[in-house]
Amino acid sequence: MAANPAKKTQGISPFYVMDLLRRAKQLEDQGRSIIHMEIGEPDFPTPQAIIDAGIHLLQSGEVKYTPAAGLPHLRKEIADFYQRQGISVPVERIFITPGASGALLLALGSSLNAGDKVLLADPCYPCNRNFVTLLEGRVQAIPVDETTRYHLNAQIIKQHWTDSTKAVLVASPSNPTGTLIDADDLKQAVAMVDDLGGCFYSDEIYHGLVYGREAVSALKFSDQVFVINSFSKYFGMTGWRIGWLVVPEQFIGVIERMAQNLFIATSTVAQYAAIAAFAEETQIELERRRAELAMRRDFLYEGLLRMGFDIPIKPDGAFYIYANAAHFTDNSGQFALDLLEEEGVAVTPGKDFGEYNAPHMLRFAYTLPIDKMSIALQRLQRFINRE
Amino acid sequence: MAANPAKKTQGISPFYVMDLLRRAKQLEDQGRSIIHMEIGEPDFPTPQAIIDAGIHLLQSGEVKYTPAAGLPHLRKEIADFYQRQGISVPVERIFITPGASGALLLALGSSLNAGDKVLLADPCYPCNRNFVTLLEGRVQAIPVDETTRYHLNAQIIKQHWTDSTKAVLVASPSNPTGTLIDADDLKQAVAMVDDLGGCFYSDEIYHGLVYGREAVSALKFSDQVFVINSFSKYFGMTGWRIGWLVVPEQFIGVIERMAQNLFIATSTVAQYAAIAAFAEETQIELERRRAELAMRRDFLYEGLLRMGFDIPIKPDGAFYIYANAAHFTDNSGQFALDLLEEEGVAVTPGKDFGEYNAPHMLRFAYTLPIDKMSIALQRLQRFINRE
Repeated sequence: MAANPAKKTQGISPFYVMDLLRRAKQLEDQGRSIIHMEIGEPDFPTPQAIIDAGIHLLQSGEVKYTPAAGLPHLRKEIADFYQRQGISVPVERIFITPGASGALLLALGSSLNAGDKVLLADPCYPCNRNFVTLLEGRVQAIPVDETTRYHLNAQIIKQHWTDSTKAVLVASPSNPTGTLIDADDLKQAVAMVDDLGGCFYSDEIYHGLVYGREAVSALKFSDQVFVINSFSKYFGMTGWRIGWLVVPEQFIGVIERMAQNLFIATSTVAQYAAIAAFAEETQIELERRRAELAMRRDFLYEGLLRMGFDIPIKPDGAFYIYANAAHFTDNSGQFALDLLEEEGVAVTPGKDFGEYNAPHMLRFAYTLPIDKMSIALQRLQRFINRE
Repeated sequence: MAANPAKKTQGISPFYVMDLLRRAKQLEDQGRSIIHMEIGEPDFPTPQAIIDAGIHLLQSGEVKYTPAAGLPHLRKEIADFYQRQGISVPVERIFITPGASGALLLALGSSLNAGDKVLLADPCYPCNRNFVTLLEGRVQAIPVDETTRYHLNAQIIKQHWTDSTKAVLVASPSNPTGTLIDADDLKQAVAMVDDLGGCFYSDEIYHGLVYGREAVSALKFSDQVFVINSFSKYFGMTGWRIGWLVVPEQFIGVIERMAQNLFIATSTVAQYAAIAAFAEETQIELERRRAELAMRRDFLYEGLLRMGFDIPIKPDGAFYIYANAAHFTDNSGQFALDLLEEEGVAVTPGKDFGEYNAPHMLRFAYTLPIDKMSIALQRLQRFINRE
């Protein structure tokens, strides 16, 4: 008698974009030109100094387990990174993790019991919801729009808080909207959750990739927040699988135990390599990339607006624009499939990020050069004009 | 108002050996000579061909995300690995994971709902229990002894099965006992769990490290088992964090979704490097190491027996001996601390592996050369004779 997947796994949604990607692959195999604007991965390679540090570690042959919390040297680099932002964080509160994914698992796993509710924004990154489901928590997704820059705030949190609510997750800059939460809103939201006795998870994986403003860490406002960060996006280390988590002091012991049990440790080569992420030459290269991404953001934003997409707030960061296609469709999923089929442009439909207004929404990633985006926009224009 | 760790985290036990390790570190810092027999990590470096493949990948600069299920080439190598054992496994059922830890999380997470019970042996590797707790499942640890080679069998499973039991986990060779389950017992246990409609998790991370016999994969007996394996132990890739999971066909979809959500993907450099684990030159080196470990096993086994430790079954594999120290102590935790303090030998107390007979038990790892073990045994003899 064959066993079947657990009931709760039905609550773990697939990425709809995966179907689209499979079709894109088929079309490419047939020789069609496909422009990928659905990909949440920077097109820049890992900076050379980081690669070199990884090679150096491998040449030493010493690829043993590190301590569960991570290499002391790397934890110190991260503490210094916060110090430069005027924030003091003891290294003991910093844990190196297998990507931001590992950080989320530790943060949620250490603080949620079965049935606990977590407030988060709709739209948001789907994995965040799915982690809560896996841990037998419950997702309370709150529709948000441009009036709050697509973020939760203190008032919304207070309004939706119930006896079974345990935590709030804010991801800024947001995936898919690219909008930054205002520093003051973040401060008040953190204070509200503290008043309510809940946990505050601040997903800061796109910090650094912000254009014209600066993202402020939730650590600036409280030492009682969980901060999730990553070397993947700004530091260009996606395939290395390394991130970090900052935890409130009273969680240090339990997080250490959980890290030992859940991961043993993070990839040793990734940890030694990541030390070079803070080197001056890497920082210069990363700032060059940030300037390039800012130009791409402007180019795509203006192009989409001209075409009739509605983008109420100019995105501040990450590498996404979440555009309202209501002038063209009431079914953005079908729109995305047809756009791929007819014009070879791949974008992500809104339903991957939640339910609120999803049938009107499309996420465009600017993880490709402007000349390619220019062709994509021409194709998109032709697609819109097709009838 | 500060939030506190979730109640369930109280069920996640620490590794007691960590306290011992901290003390060992202090003593070493004072210049004391400490011999480490507590470490569950091979002392051999990663084989050179694997290192070289990792360097080659880094030199290419292409450290991007791979598909969530893993590199097709590596999945195919693993399918071939089973084919050489006379077992056909379609590559679609093979998932590359961030260590065996990631494989366990996928296997348990995809099949357990809150409250589901999992049968496993006491003693067993503590992480296996803690994963169940994290996922809000319940651990049913069944005391096992030498009469079943420290393993569950069909009869024990049937006897302890209840309406809320959902799954059985068998780890062979066992950590801490090093004993292999008899192939026939494994076959019958798999059939029993299939009859009962449960899930069977076979932890095979020490396969390959078996001396004088061969470990048989549970896949030989059923395509309805979950098999957890790793590149860490036999293949010498601990710090790379890479393993794999084989799943029943009806779980392919949900495991793919979970892998996307929980990990995005496994370390790219580890995956490219692991392809070289199956190269002929690597296999020759690994077999040389296996022969060395077999000698160490014999040396330590005979040494401990001579000293008066009770080891009812000669261990077949892994790199552990689980010795009964009842002639010397009723408190193996204190024994281990005193042994460290007085003679500078670090071993792991039984309580790290369960409750059954734990105060009499000590785990000795032979992850060190015979000449060092020889000194450790002299010190141990002196310690035993001290009164």
